[in-house]
Amino acid sequence: MAKTDNIVISSRIRFARNINNLPFPQKLVGNEPKLKELYDTVKEVCDSKFKNNMYYIPKLNNLQANVLIENHLISPLLCKSEYGGVVISADKTISVMINEEDHLREQCILEGYVLDAAYAKLLDIDKALRSKLDIAFKEGFGHLTACPTNLGAGMRASVMMFLPALTMTHTIDAIIRKMNDHGVAIRGVYGEGSTADGYMYQVSNQAAVGRSEQEILNIVKSVVEKLCDMEEQNRKTLLSRRGVDLEDEIMRAYGTLLFAKKISSQEFMRNIAMVKLGVDYGFIKQDIRVLNKLVTDTQKNTLCFNAGKELSVSDRDILRSRLVRETLTKKA
Amino acid sequence: MAKTDNIVISSRIRFARNINNLPFPQKLVGNEPKLKELYDTVKEVCDSKFKNNMYYIPKLNNLQANVLIENHLISPLLCKSEYGGVVISADKTISVMINEEDHLREQCILEGYVLDAAYAKLLDIDKALRSKLDIAFKEGFGHLTACPTNLGAGMRASVMMFLPALTMTHTIDAIIRKMNDHGVAIRGVYGEGSTADGYMYQVSNQAAVGRSEQEILNIVKSVVEKLCDMEEQNRKTLLSRRGVDLEDEIMRAYGTLLFAKKISSQEFMRNIAMVKLGVDYGFIKQDIRVLNKLVTDTQKNTLCFNAGKELSVSDRDILRSRLVRETLTKKA
Repeated sequence: MAKTDNIVISSRIRFARNINNLPFPQKLVGNEPKLKELYDTVKEVCDSKFKNNMYYIPKLNNLQANVLIENHLISPLLCKSEYGGVVISADKTISVMINEEDHLREQCILEGYVLDAAYAKLLDIDKALRSKLDIAFKEGFGHLTACPTNLGAGMRASVMMFLPALTMTHTIDAIIRKMNDHGVAIRGVYGEGSTADGYMYQVSNQAAVGRSEQEILNIVKSVVEKLCDMEEQNRKTLLSRRGVDLEDEIMRAYGTLLFAKKISSQEFMRNIAMVKLGVDYGFIKQDIRVLNKLVTDTQKNTLCFNAGKELSVSDRDILRSRLVRETLTKKA
Repeated sequence: MAKTDNIVISSRIRFARNINNLPFPQKLVGNEPKLKELYDTVKEVCDSKFKNNMYYIPKLNNLQANVLIENHLISPLLCKSEYGGVVISADKTISVMINEEDHLREQCILEGYVLDAAYAKLLDIDKALRSKLDIAFKEGFGHLTACPTNLGAGMRASVMMFLPALTMTHTIDAIIRKMNDHGVAIRGVYGEGSTADGYMYQVSNQAAVGRSEQEILNIVKSVVEKLCDMEEQNRKTLLSRRGVDLEDEIMRAYGTLLFAKKISSQEFMRNIAMVKLGVDYGFIKQDIRVLNKLVTDTQKNTLCFNAGKELSVSDRDILRSRLVRETLTKKA
């Protein structure tokens, strides 16, 4: 296990692309023939590259759309788009959103700290798409995008990180302020601002203009690697400072996940974070990837979707606890 | 398993006896020769009846004395007695205190709802003792005792009961008031008044005067049996009313006992009570007697005594959690 495996959860690259001579997505009315062509071309290119499913957003029900949002495959903004659609690879690593803020939002998301691999994979799709589409791009200027922050490289590189020690030692706040000055944003992932839930943070470049794709990758990677070192150091400090109290807190969280008969999403997030820390310290034997998948699978809509129906809060809490128990007690 | 097994923890009979022409224990100075004779005779009789150990209280250190108190083998009052002593059977079911409030306090304590058996066993010891000692007794009046509440039969019959459902449904308070009128006292066992800790209650006759031993047994048994029926009924009501919420509470308590790395006496008592209830409902497979023994073994002084030394609060909490984990995970 690489030392980053219990710190970096996933790596994501996103490209923003637009089509020449087509109004931005908010103003598409009347362009139906061109839109059909766009959809057909994207689907055709994707089919040539990977197994996939295409969804036309206005045809999805709320549950279906929310599951895709919870799995980071579409954005909440896409759901508001009158002409929104998405192509999602069967393995869920690639998604191409159509008519979100830009005509195309291409994304590759991979588990672990593999930003370069995600970039290479998405670049391959991007090349195939631009060979068939009239992408708005000017040498020396870069890509045209709907929002100025994406101009130029039109790229966002982001890494989802699990930073419990930096959070518990209150070191994270100063880091966030300092990193913002370096053009890198660090945001709590679950519940804007309330980072304590799962100790999860997204680290990404703030602007793309004036920087090459490689420069963006490098700046994000250098921050991620610094955060990994600091988190690792802080985990050691935390354990030596809190000792058995910390072990007690971790093991109680594990006991709760193994025995509770109902559990809210919030309590689950708090406890799974402690369990992941416990795996890192060697107190608990579990596969980190299995725990990370559980974080996705226990979310409200994903839970209902897999159950095949809408569920009350109470029924979700019961179902969530069962899924957690079964997953954690399953023999590897 | 009898239906009372998860309600009645133990049955206890106690006789108060005094020696003719010997001042009550508070005023014994100057009677050393007679006291030596008393000690020798008690020891001799006990030796003829059962394997035992004799302790002279002023020679015990605090830890040794407190362990005997925690195990209900001596009373706190005996520890204050200048001439106090005790003979305790090797199996810890019989204890004969010397110079507590009365010259002799004979006690038999047995697991489960076996008040008649405890009475028969103690009666046999009592007969042997009075055949060798000049016990203060008058036909038609009964036994002379230091405190008027023990006059007559000089007997207390008490039963330790586990009444979580009657406590949680708040039914117990009215019962306690009502039973007091019937000459039976019901008292919370752990921490005077604060019954919630372990939901444990002691049910015993209030006065012995004017009642035969058999009458005392009958009155206590009838109350105990009524309480058993009510508790059983209330456990059913509680489960049907609270359902999965109650199961969740019970299983979380179990998870905490199985995984915590430190646990206070109070938290342990609260959780073990829930676990015992869980055994009753069939949620948890554990031997109730093992759980009841754990309640005794995890007490402050017993814990230190078994560790062979005085321990800090924090070290006790760690040791307690280890004992609990090991006991609960031991294969039957």
